[in-house]
Amino acid sequence: MITLLSDFGTEAHFVGAMKGVIAGIAPRTPVVDITHEVPPFEIATAAFLLDQSWRYFPAGTIHVAIVDPGVGSQRRPVLIASQGHYFIGPDNGLFSLILQDAKAVARVLDKPKYWLPNQSNTFHGRDVFSPAAAHLSKGVKPSQLGKRINDPWRNMLFEPVRQSRRTYSGAVLFTDRYGNLITNFKIDNFPTLRNRPFELQAGLERIELFAGTYSAIPPGELAVIPASSGYYEIAMREASAAKRLGLANGSPVELTTS
Amino acid sequence: MITLLSDFGTEAHFVGAMKGVIAGIAPRTPVVDITHEVPPFEIATAAFLLDQSWRYFPAGTIHVAIVDPGVGSQRRPVLIASQGHYFIGPDNGLFSLILQDAKAVARVLDKPKYWLPNQSNTFHGRDVFSPAAAHLSKGVKPSQLGKRINDPWRNMLFEPVRQSRRTYSGAVLFTDRYGNLITNFKIDNFPTLRNRPFELQAGLERIELFAGTYSAIPPGELAVIPASSGYYEIAMREASAAKRLGLANGSPVELTTS
Amino acid sequence: MITLLSDFGTEAHFVGAMKGVIAGIAPRTPVVDITHEVPPFEIATAAFLLDQSWRYFPAGTIHVAIVDPGVGSQRRPVLIASQGHYFIGPDNGLFSLILQDAKAVARVLDKPKYWLPNQSNTFHGRDVFSPAAAHLSKGVKPSQLGKRINDPWRNMLFEPVRQSRRTYSGAVLFTDRYGNLITNFKIDNFPTLRNRPFELQAGLERIELFAGTYSAIPPGELAVIPASSGYYEIAMREASAAKRLGLANGSPVELTTS
Repeated sequence: MITLLSDFGTEAHFVGAMKGVIAGIAPRTPVVDITHEVPPFEIATAAFLLDQSWRYFPAGTIHVAIVDPGVGSQRRPVLIASQGHYFIGPDNGLFSLILQDAKAVARVLDKPKYWLPNQSNTFHGRDVFSPAAAHLSKGVKPSQLGKRINDPWRNMLFEPVRQSRRTYSGAVLFTDRYGNLITNFKIDNFPTLRNRPFELQAGLERIELFAGTYSAIPPGELAVIPASSGYYEIAMREASAAKRLGLANGSPVELTTS
Repeated sequence: MITLLSDFGTEAHFVGAMKGVIAGIAPRTPVVDITHEVPPFEIATAAFLLDQSWRYFPAGTIHVAIVDPGVGSQRRPVLIASQGHYFIGPDNGLFSLILQDAKAVARVLDKPKYWLPNQSNTFHGRDVFSPAAAHLSKGVKPSQLGKRINDPWRNMLFEPVRQSRRTYSGAVLFTDRYGNLITNFKIDNFPTLRNRPFELQAGLERIELFAGTYSAIPPGELAVIPASSGYYEIAMREASAAKRLGLANGSPVELTTS
Repeated sequence: MITLLSDFGTEAHFVGAMKGVIAGIAPRTPVVDITHEVPPFEIATAAFLLDQSWRYFPAGTIHVAIVDPGVGSQRRPVLIASQGHYFIGPDNGLFSLILQDAKAVARVLDKPKYWLPNQSNTFHGRDVFSPAAAHLSKGVKPSQLGKRINDPWRNMLFEPVRQSRRTYSGAVLFTDRYGNLITNFKIDNFPTLRNRPFELQAGLERIELFAGTYSAIPPGELAVIPASSGYYEIAMREASAAKRLGLANGSPVELTTS
């Protein structure tokens, strides 16, 4: 099985061409879209969405993830093996969260025989990444696709930074369609929010309310809820916290615990 | 086969995570998207779109439909069997049109062994509905997934209301991408519109023109046409009736027959 | 395998109903979406996107393409066979680029036994094109679906027009999500742009810069690049040329070579 995640959008031919290339090489391999609506060039957003998706797929799944402003330049195409899954895409930080696994093995895709002939300089999704994924799904070995590298790009910041004993500066990782703001504060790392007072400074508001579900939030109020992503989320009940606060992907937030 | 319909959008990881869960449990079950672009929290719109889609699929298809503002609250997760098809989602009115079938059988999903371990309070699509659907597709019996209930939520209003001998108040069920406004006046219930004068009050306009096809509408005019949905639709030729009239899903309209 | 391309959008039931119809007739035929986001009624855009996609699929693929403002009128439903692929949709110019193949064979779909019973006048995608494609995928012969015709609509203009010895008027074929403007100047027909001076007049700007990749464009500059589509594209580095120039699908551009 191959999954696809990109910032290509669905209004153009990009995704269709990739699926055609895969079907031409590996017609029996199922292809599943994660999303193609990553905002253009937002590598960190793609890294977050990939991290939220891949682990639910069965072992052996090949995840093609592409946000690739450096296509055609010297940035390397890579294949990463981690925890029984495979990841293919540009070496630009997109796989930072995958590479937190110390046992992950990275390779550079350097064997043009597994690409389309006559690659373009602008669409490696079609010409390099899709054919490599299709060949891998048919039994070509990772070692045949490229040689190991020890320096894949992994230094993208996703963790809150401690500013003082009880204060941490964080950020919005993702804004969903409802306007919920997923922060980078992990539930497991800040377990006291459910039981003890806290303040979350977000935009011009200071949020002190905790709720267990969306429908438990009083209408019109902002609350922090422990979300399905494993991170705390700023939410309203059937309304957009993002619009209310004027925040978006990457906006800073600040947590003070007690 | 499993179909998916939701208000999750396609820009986040929600749909990808659901497909991963299904693939992990039932890797051979095909999954088809109906739509994930239901406007957030519009349960009635989802009910209409489900009703327009499910009957074209083969018997035995499992339809997962989710617009779920009450996720994590006391609202029940349900499985409904009707006319050889299965329907899975929240018990909040979304299945009102399905439940017009007197022979429909409803069950509450109350067997956590068929869910993901450690369910969240905010994403039952991933943690409850998708795994239940996947298990059902693999041969688990409905009776194993939960016990029968007699009181599923079915009281959502979809029918026009008669106001006087010849006047009916109705509503816009759905606005499509072209700006066509699908009303809740069923062609079969109002068969005279094709042959006899009528007036349809919509926004600030009174429409008296009937057309059989979009291309038969004079440019710039509003007309009522008998649409593929089985309902009358307010349309223009290659232009948006919704923009012209300023109407949207749920807007009132009033029909006077002769 | 069946591919789908349309202007139906993904927010309605249209695509889901088509997939249900196909699954009901040919449950084992895989269905792949190219795009459903063609701007409403833009036949030329659909023709371009189809041309960019179909050739990457394996031989025998059936491509259903629908932008159909004349649905229900006298416009014919057609099936075209070309280069081992099949194309199904309305006879309104959408297949102009496919029909440049002199060996292409066109047929009118005139056998209602291969359609849904009780066709609507507004949704032939569901009622005519999808069932015909599904039957074709199951082994029904093209000659059983309809009789040959010699006059399919093929006269849509896609080529630049020479205005003087060194000047050509062209147009924007497609604007992608990044704001890159794909022109109708084919790289193969204008090979000198890489090596010799040129001017491309686009909106209020005169572009004289050539770049081989997006990341080679100086920030803030407009450049012409040889794109993966086979056409020259007007692009910026991680910014939208379409917004900068105020251009969109169909906008005129003018090339002067040296």
